[in-house]
Amino acid sequence: FNDTFSALPTTVFEEMSLLAAKHNSTNLGQGFPDNELEGPEGMKKAATAAMYEHSNQYPPMMGVPELRQAVAAHSARQTGIAVDWQSEALVTVGATEALAAAFLALLNAGDEVIFFAPLYDSYLPMATRAGAVPRIVQLHPPSWSLDTAELEAAFTPRTRLLVLNTPHNPTGKVFTRQELEAMAELCVRHDCLCILDEVYEHLTFPGTQHVTLRSLPGMHDRCLRIGSAGKTFSFTAWKVGWLTGPRDMVAAVAKAHQFLTFTVPSSLQRAVAHGLDKEGEFYLGLGALLQKKRQLLVGQLQDIGFKILPANGTYFLVADFSALLPEGSTEDDVQFCYRLTKEAGVTLIPVSAFYADRATAPRNLVRFVFCKTDEKLQTACDKLRHYF
Amino acid sequence: FNDTFSALPTTVFEEMSLLAAKHNSTNLGQGFPDNELEGPEGMKKAATAAMYEHSNQYPPMMGVPELRQAVAAHSARQTGIAVDWQSEALVTVGATEALAAAFLALLNAGDEVIFFAPLYDSYLPMATRAGAVPRIVQLHPPSWSLDTAELEAAFTPRTRLLVLNTPHNPTGKVFTRQELEAMAELCVRHDCLCILDEVYEHLTFPGTQHVTLRSLPGMHDRCLRIGSAGKTFSFTAWKVGWLTGPRDMVAAVAKAHQFLTFTVPSSLQRAVAHGLDKEGEFYLGLGALLQKKRQLLVGQLQDIGFKILPANGTYFLVADFSALLPEGSTEDDVQFCYRLTKEAGVTLIPVSAFYADRATAPRNLVRFVFCKTDEKLQTACDKLRHYF
Ligand SMILES: CSCCC(=O)C(=O)O
Ligand SMILES: CSCCC(=O)C(=O)O
Repeated sequence: FNDTFSALPTTVFEEMSLLAAKHNSTNLGQGFPDNELEGPEGMKKAATAAMYEHSNQYPPMMGVPELRQAVAAHSARQTGIAVDWQSEALVTVGATEALAAAFLALLNAGDEVIFFAPLYDSYLPMATRAGAVPRIVQLHPPSWSLDTAELEAAFTPRTRLLVLNTPHNPTGKVFTRQELEAMAELCVRHDCLCILDEVYEHLTFPGTQHVTLRSLPGMHDRCLRIGSAGKTFSFTAWKVGWLTGPRDMVAAVAKAHQFLTFTVPSSLQRAVAHGLDKEGEFYLGLGALLQKKRQLLVGQLQDIGFKILPANGTYFLVADFSALLPEGSTEDDVQFCYRLTKEAGVTLIPVSAFYADRATAPRNLVRFVFCKTDEKLQTACDKLRHYF
Repeated sequence: FNDTFSALPTTVFEEMSLLAAKHNSTNLGQGFPDNELEGPEGMKKAATAAMYEHSNQYPPMMGVPELRQAVAAHSARQTGIAVDWQSEALVTVGATEALAAAFLALLNAGDEVIFFAPLYDSYLPMATRAGAVPRIVQLHPPSWSLDTAELEAAFTPRTRLLVLNTPHNPTGKVFTRQELEAMAELCVRHDCLCILDEVYEHLTFPGTQHVTLRSLPGMHDRCLRIGSAGKTFSFTAWKVGWLTGPRDMVAAVAKAHQFLTFTVPSSLQRAVAHGLDKEGEFYLGLGALLQKKRQLLVGQLQDIGFKILPANGTYFLVADFSALLPEGSTEDDVQFCYRLTKEAGVTLIPVSAFYADRATAPRNLVRFVFCKTDEKLQTACDKLRHYF
């Protein structure tokens, strides 16, 4: 079997969800909203209507025109960047397929790719399978700051691609304009392409502005921007994603897409088009809603003894649990998460799972997901308070 | 950009459908059923109900339990092969993703893969991108017979995988037990794995039995069998597929799947589970329905001057148009298809599009799709009769 894939474990998110189910634990691990917080009713109606009123046969490979148009209009509203819907937008099976197709389409064997750690667990296996040699630049806790000298040192003549996720999973960091300017300058200097995983673009807290790297000088023609209906509309089961970018890059990714999945279920595409066009109230309100939920956790977790790391977006919260360990304990984050699931009945994700090389990973941090009902968040806090 | 993908044209099916739309031509090119022939109403109801009655958040990576159970039961009914739903079945985004994930999961760079030509146009690019060195064995028209000496000669010590599509696109050939026995013997002797693209398993004409290579001696633990809701239920827009096979092979493919798409829209999964369990009448009747539609074409096309090649299944018909060319004409199949679209108003697919090396391809054959209303098939015949 293939060497890259067969060595891999099942994704940590599924592993912890299965463990949570087994122990009947409150699951603040895998990142998905509670059913009570799912997207607008109008989108379910639109999906149903599409199935009855439109063809159930192959939609165009790049996506139904109304969704590509909606994606282009959304991009223009969000970033000020005009997108030609026919040649600069592609619909994919979630952001996961957008990432996989981009790696397979853009890379040749031996190309170097720059990533920031911590990083989402599909990036490295898929990029490596596509032939990449990864170069990983560390973000430094507690504020997850980027040392631009370290970034600069990661570039070599073989650098082909930089992968940036902002707002960032698992840290909740929203990269600053200053950091983006340093990246842009280096990408232009080294003629480097970028994949921008911006699936949490609407999940920034009030007062924070998400800026896309594509809007910076020299970046327009080298960036693919990835979005997700799962995250934007809290319908993670729908598996509709998209990417926008310059015509030549989008055309290249479409070549991979046509042989990975060919196309995306048309009824869900039509429903997402409706969502982007008509349900702005939902996604434009997500940042404020999530900030309140985060605040519900922060004070209580601090009282319990967690140290909370700062964040400006996403539905993830990272906390340092060191102060909760008995003196002299060498328990790491994975052991801590297993113990909490079994003994406290609360499931979290160990942050070291977001590092390729666990030896360089912090071992004192866990990730909470808070796109959950207030009752569930309160239950988790109560269980943790009781346990510690 | 990637060398394998960036050299590729858009898939011929989409190219010809766009051309057909432009010329307002009767489209018997791309393989999808007319809306009037789409799958059971009960499945659309089930998809709608699932969206309202079940979670719209991530289903399990391998598929919802009820669909994996339905796939396992279907496999047992179809082939007599028992499948453990938890470890031996995986749900994918159509058969296209199943194929892509299998190539990426099973192959290492330099592994040789045996294909039969003509072959579906995603096979080679995806297998090559996964590192494969293709070895292509020709099927010989008009009966598309397999010369087992030629097959034997294709095996080398580097052979890792054989890819078999039966019933076969574009020819409609259903491989015989004798041919399968020769393949099984060679695969066992060379310790070769198999990917069985059996998406047309229910589209065999009455009197012909589709046999799966996995049921032959020595083959059980080396074959992945791929199925498709798009083909089984005539809902090509739904993009639900599946594969079954031995636990180790399925686990390997799941590793690729989790980073290609992660999972499949859950409402459509539930609807397909309903279909496999309850709508057997639909798919068990497909073979007889399609045979009648084929017969509607055959006599008329012969009268017009086409020579029809034999077939035992699928909704594809291959015809030789040589007798229709003016004396001394050197027009090939691609030119013929463009001319028919523009001048006769009927769109077909040139069979040379199913060959990697067009130099070795027959240039006198075209493919008709006949999963269309009788009216549309009649219109196409009338237009062709009038034109020639
Ligand atoms: C594909 S399951 C992972 C969901 C997620 O994005 C996360 O938990 O980080
Ligand atoms: C993905 S479009 C191709 C449909 C098909 O299977 C065919 O026409 O052969």
